Amino acid sequence: MPRFKMTVEYDGTPYVGWQRQENGHSVQAALEGGILSLTGEKVSIRGAGRTDSGVHALGQVIHADLSRDWAPYKLRNALNAHLMLAGEKVSVLDVEAVASGFDARFTAIRRHYLYRIISRRSPLAIEAKRAWWVAKDLDHEAMHAAAQMLVGHHDFTTFRSAHCQAKSPVRTLDRLDVTRQAEFIEIRASAQSFLHNQIRSFAGTLKLAGEGKMTPDDVRHALEARDRAACGPVAPPEGLYFMQVDYREGYASIERDTQEPLQEVGEDE
Amino acid sequence: MPRFKMTVEYDGTPYVGWQRQENGHSVQAALEGGILSLTGEKVSIRGAGRTDSGVHALGQVIHADLSRDWAPYKLRNALNAHLMLAGEKVSVLDVEAVASGFDARFTAIRRHYLYRIISRRSPLAIEAKRAWWVAKDLDHEAMHAAAQMLVGHHDFTTFRSAHCQAKSPVRTLDRLDVTRQAEFIEIRASAQSFLHNQIRSFAGTLKLAGEGKMTPDDVRHALEARDRAACGPVAPPEGLYFMQVDYREGYASIERDTQEPLQEVGEDE
Repeated sequence: MPRFKMTVEYDGTPYVGWQRQENGHSVQAALEGGILSLTGEKVSIRGAGRTDSGVHALGQVIHADLSRDWAPYKLRNALNAHLMLAGEKVSVLDVEAVASGFDARFTAIRRHYLYRIISRRSPLAIEAKRAWWVAKDLDHEAMHAAAQMLVGHHDFTTFRSAHCQAKSPVRTLDRLDVTRQAEFIEIRASAQSFLHNQIRSFAGTLKLAGEGKMTPDDVRHALEARDRAACGPVAPPEGLYFMQVDYREGYASIERDTQEPLQEVGEDE
Repeated sequence: MPRFKMTVEYDGTPYVGWQRQENGHSVQAALEGGILSLTGEKVSIRGAGRTDSGVHALGQVIHADLSRDWAPYKLRNALNAHLMLAGEKVSVLDVEAVASGFDARFTAIRRHYLYRIISRRSPLAIEAKRAWWVAKDLDHEAMHAAAQMLVGHHDFTTFRSAHCQAKSPVRTLDRLDVTRQAEFIEIRASAQSFLHNQIRSFAGTLKLAGEGKMTPDDVRHALEARDRAACGPVAPPEGLYFMQVDYREGYASIERDTQEPLQEVGEDE
């Protein structure tokens, strides 16, 4: 069956999260419903990251196997038409035909997230549910300095949800940058994979650093404690955006379907 | 009674528009309700611009007369708390004490609007109700060239709603610039005042210029026709943002309450 890679944008607000669940409507169910409505096929799709309820995506990646060999742009347009008719807050940005060795989750080599904070006195109207509103002023340079304590290969037990299902709490964090433009503070995180709630745990802790309540050394000690209790309050989901997933060059060539599988590392942010 | 100037942000989506109406909840009613809930006073506020349903504001300006002489920051914070409790999508960004000669509508010397278009093949998820989705590719340079035909002192009958209540269709358009960054096209319009639906009429016509369906000369002829039928389809409200209102320097000095009134020009975008 032809395999398709799709890059997907969604507003996480009305969904219970990425993953299909008993207790409400998920992004996965929205997309599977769109495919069913379009093709009549009951497919099970896999996403590169399992985002929580309220978490957004500008570049989630999924794969799906369909019986028909669609022209990618036709599949994108037709699926979007069905998603819009169903009132879903999900949009397919791009479709590619890929080799059967491609797996949106297990062949990803890097994931990129953005966490947005708006630091101002007045509540958010236009940006409500699109960023974390922090009424206090934050020192973004102190946040960036604290963030550098977390970059690298570490046991991230402190910054991992109690519900995290990953076998190991050890991850390699490639990037954790904090920048600011006017009232908009952006935290950009990159790694091969993340633990459940890892970035929201970072954001909550970095906010304390921005308020002057934690020094970079305090953050390093929190990491070294390998203790969930050392983490700042977990930041709310509405600030988090799943931005991009990287794969090895050449994955999309449908001639190369014997590609070596990568290390099977999950993803539970 | 002390007069206060307030700068207000709102998501226009859930409102029937700025102005209090019988047929639904307005931004004006939301703010008047917040003031009533906070102070027990039934006040009538005036806004610098009467935005339509679905039109947003990042910098609407209003004035209100209250019986008590509030510290401005306390009034802002207390009013925001009441607006949030009421579930309103309205946020007060700034409060100033002003002289009684200040009138949010009638002493404004310049108004600034932004119209946002997102030009891409896939529907909007994150930016739904925050921009006009145009699936076609648009030539923003052609749009900008066409826009320059509209700048200046003109009879804007072509670009005015049939329901416009202004006495004269003559206005002076100071600026109509079209710029682009990736898929985001921005139209920025400035004038002392605008006619009802003027900017949305511009945006609809400029979109035709961006598709190559109207040349700059066609747009000039449409203006000169002084005929509503010569206008392109009016662009939807969700792309429009009321950004800023300028007043004469010194208006805020509560010592200077004998300030000369400006020309009484309304505003009905």
